[in-house]
Amino acid sequence: MTVVFRDAVSADVPDILALLADDVLGQGRERYDISVYAKAFERLARDPNNTQIIGEAENRVVACYQLTIIPGLSLTAATRAQIEGVRVASQMRSKGVGAALIADAEARARAAGATLLQLTMNRTRVDSHRFYEANGFSPSHVGFKKPL
Amino acid sequence: MTVVFRDAVSADVPDILALLADDVLGQGRERYDISVYAKAFERLARDPNNTQIIGEAENRVVACYQLTIIPGLSLTAATRAQIEGVRVASQMRSKGVGAALIADAEARARAAGATLLQLTMNRTRVDSHRFYEANGFSPSHVGFKKPL
Repeated sequence: MTVVFRDAVSADVPDILALLADDVLGQGRERYDISVYAKAFERLARDPNNTQIIGEAENRVVACYQLTIIPGLSLTAATRAQIEGVRVASQMRSKGVGAALIADAEARARAAGATLLQLTMNRTRVDSHRFYEANGFSPSHVGFKKPL
Repeated sequence: MTVVFRDAVSADVPDILALLADDVLGQGRERYDISVYAKAFERLARDPNNTQIIGEAENRVVACYQLTIIPGLSLTAATRAQIEGVRVASQMRSKGVGAALIADAEARARAAGATLLQLTMNRTRVDSHRFYEANGFSPSHVGFKKPL
């Protein structure tokens, strides 16, 4: 399974929405009004510190994630790279797509000068926790969220 | 104790570094080369989605944090606001400074259109966990980190 990752374009938004909703948690929280996502994509694409990325295999979009580059002062002025919205198509899981996605994110993060790659994940995604630990991540932090 | 929060300027960088290092974890990981922080501050200050904020009381810098606005597609194209590098001067703790800091972050996040406020915190900061839960945050996620 070879997956090629590239920056998403506007025409990819329907495929990204389908992946976001193809998820045990995502299915309950994504609304299917494509115009909301299209508008958000345009905003994201204008931001040099945010990139929406898709993975393609056999001419289909099989994975997606967002990468955010965060400059900062803490940790001796470390630049962080943050992964959000990781999805792998349900029929494509356990084929190495996730590991390829992490490798792509690491390469982009290093190219942006980041020295730390981070993400948060819902506590209930226990299988995914094992995946990230196996790929070199440490579950050292608690992720707090507050709806506004 | 009235704390006034404002955007930091270059001249505040030494006070911010002192706060970052005035911390049980931070003291081991901040280097005291101010030029590194000064350069990182200039980069951060140019980024419209990142703001370094300080809190002042009685003409002293008593708190700091960074706020990052993250556009995105997941959660029905939610804009997130993320808090990083929260510090309250050790002699000023338990005086309501932290709650004022969170209120400031929430106001800025809402003004930027964010519908979710998030942060991660080292598992070992148990007292801080209680503080965030008492201030409306849910510890719903695990925070994974990978040094690059």
